Amino acid sequence: MKAAVMRGGKIVADEIDAPKPGSGEVLVKTLACGICGSDLHTLSHGHDLVEKSKQTGGQFAMDLDKDVVMGHEFCAEILDYGPDTTKTHPVGTRVCSMPVSFKNGTAVTVGYSNEAPGGYAEQMTLFEPMLLPVPNGLATNLAALTEPMAVGLHAVRKSNINKHEVPLVIGCGPVGLAVIVALKRQGIGPIIAADFSPRRRALAEKLGADIIINPAQTSPYESWLEVGGKSADGELLPADPMTGMPTLRQAVFFECVGVPGLIQQLMQGAPKAARIVVVGVCMETDSFQPLFGINKELNIQFVLAYTAEEFAQTLHHIAEGDIDVEPLITGTVNIAGVADAFNDLGDPEQHAKIIVVPD
Amino acid sequence: MKAAVMRGGKIVADEIDAPKPGSGEVLVKTLACGICGSDLHTLSHGHDLVEKSKQTGGQFAMDLDKDVVMGHEFCAEILDYGPDTTKTHPVGTRVCSMPVSFKNGTAVTVGYSNEAPGGYAEQMTLFEPMLLPVPNGLATNLAALTEPMAVGLHAVRKSNINKHEVPLVIGCGPVGLAVIVALKRQGIGPIIAADFSPRRRALAEKLGADIIINPAQTSPYESWLEVGGKSADGELLPADPMTGMPTLRQAVFFECVGVPGLIQQLMQGAPKAARIVVVGVCMETDSFQPLFGINKELNIQFVLAYTAEEFAQTLHHIAEGDIDVEPLITGTVNIAGVADAFNDLGDPEQHAKIIVVPD
Repeated sequence: MKAAVMRGGKIVADEIDAPKPGSGEVLVKTLACGICGSDLHTLSHGHDLVEKSKQTGGQFAMDLDKDVVMGHEFCAEILDYGPDTTKTHPVGTRVCSMPVSFKNGTAVTVGYSNEAPGGYAEQMTLFEPMLLPVPNGLATNLAALTEPMAVGLHAVRKSNINKHEVPLVIGCGPVGLAVIVALKRQGIGPIIAADFSPRRRALAEKLGADIIINPAQTSPYESWLEVGGKSADGELLPADPMTGMPTLRQAVFFECVGVPGLIQQLMQGAPKAARIVVVGVCMETDSFQPLFGINKELNIQFVLAYTAEEFAQTLHHIAEGDIDVEPLITGTVNIAGVADAFNDLGDPEQHAKIIVVPD
Repeated sequence: MKAAVMRGGKIVADEIDAPKPGSGEVLVKTLACGICGSDLHTLSHGHDLVEKSKQTGGQFAMDLDKDVVMGHEFCAEILDYGPDTTKTHPVGTRVCSMPVSFKNGTAVTVGYSNEAPGGYAEQMTLFEPMLLPVPNGLATNLAALTEPMAVGLHAVRKSNINKHEVPLVIGCGPVGLAVIVALKRQGIGPIIAADFSPRRRALAEKLGADIIINPAQTSPYESWLEVGGKSADGELLPADPMTGMPTLRQAVFFECVGVPGLIQQLMQGAPKAARIVVVGVCMETDSFQPLFGINKELNIQFVLAYTAEEFAQTLHHIAEGDIDVEPLITGTVNIAGVADAFNDLGDPEQHAKIIVVPD
């Protein structure tokens, strides 16, 4: 089959053997697969990532000296069934799935494994109990956005944010945008979002952010203070009678960048008792000053991925039109175009999400 | 009055002017005042601390070129009333108070301010609405432990720990011991506690820790895993049917040391979804690997001090004998002995809490 293979630190279009479905698995044809920022990072820092993943209990147990086909944000079509399957859905059914399969009783991450090629190839093997049929009529490219959108839903769930609290989203790449979409759907607002890129700020606005900040001009944290110091009706909150200090609504900050220094920046900019949700994946050693956390009694919640329930709900939300994710897609390529797409995604002015359509 | 003054980076016994109670304030005679680790830190790193405190929104607005009388863990006796006071409690009443007063509408921390001398002196001025009469019969030295014990109650409250969850306390200095006491009172257990010092481990056991670890011999994190993998009845928990991985009870780790590297150590040792409560006050820049937090979806809650309600409850708990804090007191000194007591507290084998009795 045709595949865009990660080989020697490069993406190479090649013909490779199609995978064979094992016990409990299904053979599928990849219809569409989004390119994720983590894939870009894996291409450039793969060895470091695998090493760190082993240390930290992560799932990237790949051998990078062998071929890896990445791609974990996909929509596919059932082609054939392996042994020990129930064949609940007929061949030809369009499906989404969390990128997890089980081979010989061991969980493998589809797209980050030598055994389970991902969606940058014509065919994959998926684990039958994970399959979710795509509701009738939902466009394949939109169904492929289930995975990255589920990340946003999970982060918002783990934040425990409620309607009286005021969110700030730092970084409006696909992760930040997914958080904005999930906040909007829950009726949370005003949503304050910040990104240096005009294109991403425009996307943030389109996807539901209410106040959009260019950090080169305005401090997102000062913008938050202005909003957080007012009631939902825009009235200035009364000062604390004991201390005379301004009162503020509860702050919930979402860190959606994932580079060193950002967590400290948020801790420094946060008001007292703020909750900081770390959604961006910083792979490097980072530094911070605990005293900011202590003096303000901050809470930091690290989040990863999503639950099976959140994944299914996200597909449902997209299919029902509860969330509008179409603006996220800024390009499509075939397998031969994956290598260039990886380069193009480096520029936030060009792209948010590129979808690979192998066929 | 006699006072142990912080002057030029040293503790000096001297005669200074007694403070005068301002509007809303009460003049008190110090009966007993505990020496806190933060005071030791302030003596050795004062300028850095004041600078960091300003940056992080903390309360240490002292001028270290002028005299400061520290001491914020006290029990006192009412001597006289300032203007605008209600005189609810008669002169001679023994009282405790949070170390906060208000001078000209501004909050000042008693013991960390040039205006409000603390308990290492014969007299202090306190804010009348903060005064809590010591319940009849409670020994003055035990009442003086209200402040450090309230820190433990606050940390345990903020941790939201419940009876099904298993705590690990790293560091058994006064802060860690206060956490152990608060956990024990809430019926949480088994309490696992770790410290390199035999004396502190003995105190941890006396104050309610169930499993006491010497980190030089045994990893506290492996000890936690052993306990966390069993039910309250000691039965091994069944493995996760999907992944085959061992299941564990919820971990709640208390960081009670406050030196660089400890937060990362706890993040590395924590099982998935653990909550880490940072009670130790690390004043320096620290480094950590966010990937440990991300891959395990850890939560880090920084905590500081206590609420007025928690302070009052702690005094009540001590007075009612709900918590036994007497073992914490390992020595008493007069004002002339404060400088030496600061040195002695550097050795965990010698002391936990030294009480200053000015009279």
